[in-house]
Amino acid sequence: MANWKNLDTLASYNELKGVKKVNLKEVMSDESGAERVKKYSVPMAGNMAFNYAAKEVDDSVLEALKKLAEEAELAEKFEELYNGAVINTGEKRMVLHHLTRGQLGNKVEADGVDKREFYLNEQKRIADFANKVHAGEITNAAGEKFTTVVQIGIGGSDLGPRAMYLALENWAKQNGKFKMEAKFISNVDPDDASAVLNSIDVAHSIFILVSKSGTTLETLTNQSFVTDALKKAGLSSSDHMIAVTSETSPLAKSDDFIEAFYMDDYIGGRYSSTSGVGGAVLSLAFGPDVFAEFLDGAAAEDKLSANKNMLENPAMLDAMIGFYERNILGYPSTAVLPYSQALNRFPAHLQQLDMESNGKSVNRFGEDIDYVTGPVIFGEPGTNGQHSFYQLLHQGTDIIPLQFIGFKNSQIGKDVDIQGSTSQQKLCANVAAQIVAFACGKADENKNKNFEGGRPSSIIIGDKLTPAALGALLAHFENKVMFQGFVWNVNSFDQEGVQLGKVLAKKVLAHETDGALAEYSNLLNI
Amino acid sequence: MANWKNLDTLASYNELKGVKKVNLKEVMSDESGAERVKKYSVPMAGNMAFNYAAKEVDDSVLEALKKLAEEAELAEKFEELYNGAVINTGEKRMVLHHLTRGQLGNKVEADGVDKREFYLNEQKRIADFANKVHAGEITNAAGEKFTTVVQIGIGGSDLGPRAMYLALENWAKQNGKFKMEAKFISNVDPDDASAVLNSIDVAHSIFILVSKSGTTLETLTNQSFVTDALKKAGLSSSDHMIAVTSETSPLAKSDDFIEAFYMDDYIGGRYSSTSGVGGAVLSLAFGPDVFAEFLDGAAAEDKLSANKNMLENPAMLDAMIGFYERNILGYPSTAVLPYSQALNRFPAHLQQLDMESNGKSVNRFGEDIDYVTGPVIFGEPGTNGQHSFYQLLHQGTDIIPLQFIGFKNSQIGKDVDIQGSTSQQKLCANVAAQIVAFACGKADENKNKNFEGGRPSSIIIGDKLTPAALGALLAHFENKVMFQGFVWNVNSFDQEGVQLGKVLAKKVLAHETDGALAEYSNLLNI
Repeated sequence: MANWKNLDTLASYNELKGVKKVNLKEVMSDESGAERVKKYSVPMAGNMAFNYAAKEVDDSVLEALKKLAEEAELAEKFEELYNGAVINTGEKRMVLHHLTRGQLGNKVEADGVDKREFYLNEQKRIADFANKVHAGEITNAAGEKFTTVVQIGIGGSDLGPRAMYLALENWAKQNGKFKMEAKFISNVDPDDASAVLNSIDVAHSIFILVSKSGTTLETLTNQSFVTDALKKAGLSSSDHMIAVTSETSPLAKSDDFIEAFYMDDYIGGRYSSTSGVGGAVLSLAFGPDVFAEFLDGAAAEDKLSANKNMLENPAMLDAMIGFYERNILGYPSTAVLPYSQALNRFPAHLQQLDMESNGKSVNRFGEDIDYVTGPVIFGEPGTNGQHSFYQLLHQGTDIIPLQFIGFKNSQIGKDVDIQGSTSQQKLCANVAAQIVAFACGKADENKNKNFEGGRPSSIIIGDKLTPAALGALLAHFENKVMFQGFVWNVNSFDQEGVQLGKVLAKKVLAHETDGALAEYSNLLNI
Repeated sequence: MANWKNLDTLASYNELKGVKKVNLKEVMSDESGAERVKKYSVPMAGNMAFNYAAKEVDDSVLEALKKLAEEAELAEKFEELYNGAVINTGEKRMVLHHLTRGQLGNKVEADGVDKREFYLNEQKRIADFANKVHAGEITNAAGEKFTTVVQIGIGGSDLGPRAMYLALENWAKQNGKFKMEAKFISNVDPDDASAVLNSIDVAHSIFILVSKSGTTLETLTNQSFVTDALKKAGLSSSDHMIAVTSETSPLAKSDDFIEAFYMDDYIGGRYSSTSGVGGAVLSLAFGPDVFAEFLDGAAAEDKLSANKNMLENPAMLDAMIGFYERNILGYPSTAVLPYSQALNRFPAHLQQLDMESNGKSVNRFGEDIDYVTGPVIFGEPGTNGQHSFYQLLHQGTDIIPLQFIGFKNSQIGKDVDIQGSTSQQKLCANVAAQIVAFACGKADENKNKNFEGGRPSSIIIGDKLTPAALGALLAHFENKVMFQGFVWNVNSFDQEGVQLGKVLAKKVLAHETDGALAEYSNLLNI
């Protein structure tokens, strides 16, 4: 059994504070910089590598981080997690999302079944369903094929699946795998559902209602929106809607659906892209084989994350460097900057994944802690971001650690040659240039044009954004966040911080308010 | 002439540090909270109001902020700006974006013309062009009407216009103002242009090439992408493309365009949504009358921003409270949270507006400064964000100041009644609930379920997101950022921090690299 201790009780944490800081500008200049780029790299799955040459680490810092990772027993804790220990202490649950894509350790039984088999079985049921929809065996009441799939869900039922869909949409079109267009309804703002419904052919659309508990207010409200629209078109929910939910939810046995597919309480919403929550929409949009490749990429990355040696474990390394930046160097936020338009909503997914998991002030036993935890995460794709907020990243008064992602090849492969280079080459040249500009800066007598440098970044470099690469990327960040939660000794798998707002919103709707809340309700005409 | 002094040389800045801090939880509870909500509100244009009851201010703090705003001569500096002083000291230029929507002060002459008349004239030329396109007087070579408009631009030529388009798309459809669908190509990633081109009917599309200098690499590259696609379809750029550029740019006199419309060096990209940069695409998409309403909303808000009394000036008040949170209370980032799906890309626009303007480490004279400037800005629409990163906002170890935006009415007006309330009521109930949850928290013996509170927020409450409200909202934030730049004594109108990356990217493409940059280029196959 691993020892779950607060960070500041670990001897190696105090040792780490004393390790000499790296002068990034110095070490990244000249030949020393070239050597670091070759040396500080670790392979990932999906034909990718995590390169951390431009982070504020050297062999001494890495050694100290490795020692801390060992004292904090990160590898052992992951092992306990995938073997079915109750890691989610707040909700007293196992944490089993890794089992949706592979079996890393022992068989895990719960609710009287082998959970790996349960997830596999749901994956097969979804695959079978999607194949029948594509083959025209499951159709609308008029016997016509469905052409559009609409996911109704919020938070983890929206951000991850949406980011994954957008990431693979062009790849699928280019590779003959595009089966159906997907749309997403999430916000309780009625204009969200209205706009999506106005943009589709309801009679040829299949809707996926996603709510683990079956009680998410936004999602049930949007279900009604869609059911109303179906009724008005003379159609029935039971011909047009499927559910992804837990077996114990009120949705599970309802007659309102063509079919229900199951997940369970051992999979948090933000970790559910590889379960039926992502599986239904991605299998319908691109076919079950593409979803399977995506899962294989995630499973391969999970295996790397189980390596006990931090230096060979990209997720653990990334986690420990991020922790170092947050707790030792004192940087309060991190930007995620994919040089890939297809990943344009990937930062929004990571924002939930990271901030909802580790934005905590108590440890996993519910006791106060005396150190900072999860940082603010934000980001937009490059090169767009370069023409937006990079000014502050280069010359602002705070240092913001950066996480770049880049691919050698585009997904569609169509390109133009302007001024002696293709767009893809320009894209890659820009990300390479940014890393060095941030790290090394450039002195200028005109201080307005001076770049201090010393601004750390890492980059994940891949061959191409394929389903397998995307799966590996997703698993990398999930595991990074998990390891950071272990270091901070927080429970990364609950989200009690979202409850109070829900309770107060209900009071407002019931007109049971006083004080400031009554006044705000009044101003907002509720 | 105003005195431009560093913040830390102002007597009232040091006084401010000594003013007693507000216990937000305490003052927002019970009747005191209700009174604050009624009292701490100031009207905005477009049927909106800025309510700052849940910020960490009281009459003493406000008095000290007002004194500082006066010592820093914020109102006088704005007056100098709109009267044509050279406020952009880095590039030695006037700052005239306010003139694109109204005349706040004296006539401003430059380049031998009255600049208000110049902008008005371009607006009229665009209106005339858009009307002819809508009437079928300007058509493709086959005499057929254009149905789609595609903006090609990056940074300020993309984020602002895109956010504005998305903000009004549903409103326009609902109000019979929707003329043409708009799409946007921005990233140098070749998959961006390819995907947009695959999604449109090129023969019935009109393209807007937007680059002030006419030399933006991404934009010229994407121009080639589009020109190639037109050629392959047997079509010509000169029948399908217009330009928005400066009169001195190489694009201005090219034969490749149906028509060129002009802006100038006195309008920064991130401040250009009310110029032809936003004007062409919005006038084509929604008609010139909608764009004119948008400008009127911005002009009305500008007038409020010219009020010398901070307490009656919403932009100045918002700016001073934000400055107080950054420099006195020490909060490093700010979240912008619109409870409106239509504003889903508004935070991305504000991210550029704010971070590119005030992410600076030298004052407007190019001298080092000893205090922090622009914060990190991020955000997503509510209620989506509630199911994502709000966990950290409520229970994380850092305090993140919040800026809510909410409207009493939806744009489309279609709604469903579930559990006794409409979706719009649920949306508004949620934002009201969040403000109070953040400010007041809620004690719980289970520390995992405990909410400390004391987390500050403001809210802009509007009647409905109309073109006028959107214009006012845009101008509010532009002016807020401007006032903060004045307080910090930085030049908010240049962006030298984007240059080094461009220089190094060119070196990579020319294979003129060594050290780390050569290695990264190698890893990325350039």
